[in-house]
Amino acid sequence: MRFEVPGFLANGISSGIKRGKRKDLALIYSETPAIISAVFTQNRVKAAPVLVSMDRVKKQMTRAVIVNSGNANACTGKAGISDACKMANIAAKEMKIDDELVLVASTGVIGERLPTERITENIPRLVEGLNPFGIPSAAEAILTTDTFPKIAFCKEKIGKKEVSICGIAKGAGMIMPNMATMLAFVLTDAAIETDALEEIFKEGIESSFNSISIDGETSTNDMAMILANGRADNPVITRYSKNIGRFSEMVFDILVRLAKMIVKDGEGATKFVEIRVINAREYHEAKKVAFNVANSNLVKTAFWGEDCNWGRIVSAIGASGVDIAADRINISFEDAMVVKDGVGTEKEQEEKAQKTMKKREFKVEIDLNCGSSKARVFTTDLSHEYIDINANYRT
Amino acid sequence: MRFEVPGFLANGISSGIKRGKRKDLALIYSETPAIISAVFTQNRVKAAPVLVSMDRVKKQMTRAVIVNSGNANACTGKAGISDACKMANIAAKEMKIDDELVLVASTGVIGERLPTERITENIPRLVEGLNPFGIPSAAEAILTTDTFPKIAFCKEKIGKKEVSICGIAKGAGMIMPNMATMLAFVLTDAAIETDALEEIFKEGIESSFNSISIDGETSTNDMAMILANGRADNPVITRYSKNIGRFSEMVFDILVRLAKMIVKDGEGATKFVEIRVINAREYHEAKKVAFNVANSNLVKTAFWGEDCNWGRIVSAIGASGVDIAADRINISFEDAMVVKDGVGTEKEQEEKAQKTMKKREFKVEIDLNCGSSKARVFTTDLSHEYIDINANYRT
Repeated sequence: MRFEVPGFLANGISSGIKRGKRKDLALIYSETPAIISAVFTQNRVKAAPVLVSMDRVKKQMTRAVIVNSGNANACTGKAGISDACKMANIAAKEMKIDDELVLVASTGVIGERLPTERITENIPRLVEGLNPFGIPSAAEAILTTDTFPKIAFCKEKIGKKEVSICGIAKGAGMIMPNMATMLAFVLTDAAIETDALEEIFKEGIESSFNSISIDGETSTNDMAMILANGRADNPVITRYSKNIGRFSEMVFDILVRLAKMIVKDGEGATKFVEIRVINAREYHEAKKVAFNVANSNLVKTAFWGEDCNWGRIVSAIGASGVDIAADRINISFEDAMVVKDGVGTEKEQEEKAQKTMKKREFKVEIDLNCGSSKARVFTTDLSHEYIDINANYRT
Repeated sequence: MRFEVPGFLANGISSGIKRGKRKDLALIYSETPAIISAVFTQNRVKAAPVLVSMDRVKKQMTRAVIVNSGNANACTGKAGISDACKMANIAAKEMKIDDELVLVASTGVIGERLPTERITENIPRLVEGLNPFGIPSAAEAILTTDTFPKIAFCKEKIGKKEVSICGIAKGAGMIMPNMATMLAFVLTDAAIETDALEEIFKEGIESSFNSISIDGETSTNDMAMILANGRADNPVITRYSKNIGRFSEMVFDILVRLAKMIVKDGEGATKFVEIRVINAREYHEAKKVAFNVANSNLVKTAFWGEDCNWGRIVSAIGASGVDIAADRINISFEDAMVVKDGVGTEKEQEEKAQKTMKKREFKVEIDLNCGSSKARVFTTDLSHEYIDINANYRT
């Protein structure tokens, strides 16, 4: 498959930030101004590139994004801000576009100054290599300890025109040592109004990147964005046009595919588990319960041990802060209901659940029986390897 | 040392709930009615003994507490409530005291019915063996996967009378598999008014049992209580008497000693770390930041790996939800300040901190520089052993 989105060029190269010859510098370029919607980390400590990009996206218009891996440019003070601007501005100059239309992102080690010299001297080569099929090399250049590049692509007719969407992503929820973490860039040639794009993207983020958990950490560098350059020439999608539903589904599909890849590539992960909470009073309560279960070390170690320890799940539900009725909880591991009305069921159900847990991927459904809202979160197990990777990362 | 508190008798025996001949049934008895203050788990899913005891402590008066280990009597529905009452009521009958003055606690596996027959047939022997020096055997009988019994004792003059306090405790914050967890019983012969006892105990709990973290879990069975029988015959301590300060200090000392023992005995723990947050705007904000750092898997694995990975601490501070100023944060590992104004200091400081981390016990101080409130939390590292213990507990 060719990961190509008309009007977008991309490239990824090695600039020597990372050891060896691994790619560590990526550039995405839109031939015409693209409208943009973006979300940034909720962490109060925001890395310099996050602060710079947050400011620049206010224009709701962009031309390019430059990204480095290997260094997060976080906890670097005012010097870090100046480094981030320098990196973006030199790229802008090389591409002959307005500074303010270049966004910047970083991921890697926290607390070290960005090697701006190495970056700036490689920018001409980075720009020169921009090409329509460069998205996979950009996807590779944004990785840190990820074990595979994450790309999702789809192309469909909206009205009579073909619309493409391609997304790339890296890392997950500060799963990495002092790596700073989740980045996602989604490109589309759809013609769409800013308001509509904003609405779709925020909704899509909620059920994708905001519904995954590796270890419950939030990094200083997270950012996700969508760029739309209108090149497909479809009738412009607005909040009221009938095509918006189809386009939303395409975006959601890309975001969920990327989010799942991130969870599957979680540090030390051997299981991929969907925690589904149903019949909650409110959506936010369903999600809070799902996250409390998904983030519980005890639940996650039980997943790793393939032990159907439902007592821990019940306890995590109860500790979520959501006002639930203990005697109404049902818990199922796929088709095996191990808890009914808050009490354990027959041993056969537990044995059946135990078999389900041997699989690489499975679902846990929690029925709160107190309303009609639902939410789902994707999570992993907690293994020895997580600890090994995280205990001695820097040494 | 003889752990004796005048007017209190205790005993601990093996009744066959646990495998082998390990003690699993404890009884504490006060020769005269004792006033009581108690706190119970905040988990919405409360084990049967918690529900029964919560109801009975409303009388603010008690005569005895019966405790079993090996079975939590949690997620057992109405049958569980009836089992808990039965256990307490048969003990009451045997001691010839009012049912309502007997409290009950359980700890152990969640989701299995209590073996009430085994318990009730052993109650006569349990009551018969009550004796003034039985506190250590009770301390032993309440343990689950703890590696040592936890007892703290002090005796001091209040006015002209000697006052004794002895506390026993087990387990910590749902560190155990599907074990349900933290129990503490403190006995004193002080004469004190109920209001004063309540105030002191609640304050003491806040800075002891509510300031420790093993893995951030909250169990279905936690309870802590203090019983005061007035046998010391001291002038009754009220909220306004000058002796209240001295007595508070004694209680706080016992509670903190027990809390520290629990952390030191945390599953798989190889480090004991005090996280101290200073110069926060509010106490609750200081505590929230301290807990977010203390509960972070990334911070805890770095402690285990003896890696001074301060970027993770900064990130955990930022992700705590407290509104902090990133450029004012200072972080010190004892006398080595590794972060100043949100930015890393010289390499020598980090090397010094690295040495500190080799110790079994050390302190991390986080200065938020935005107020004058402070809080401290005791925590541990996250090791392979934690995962081993928790992955396959039941098999």
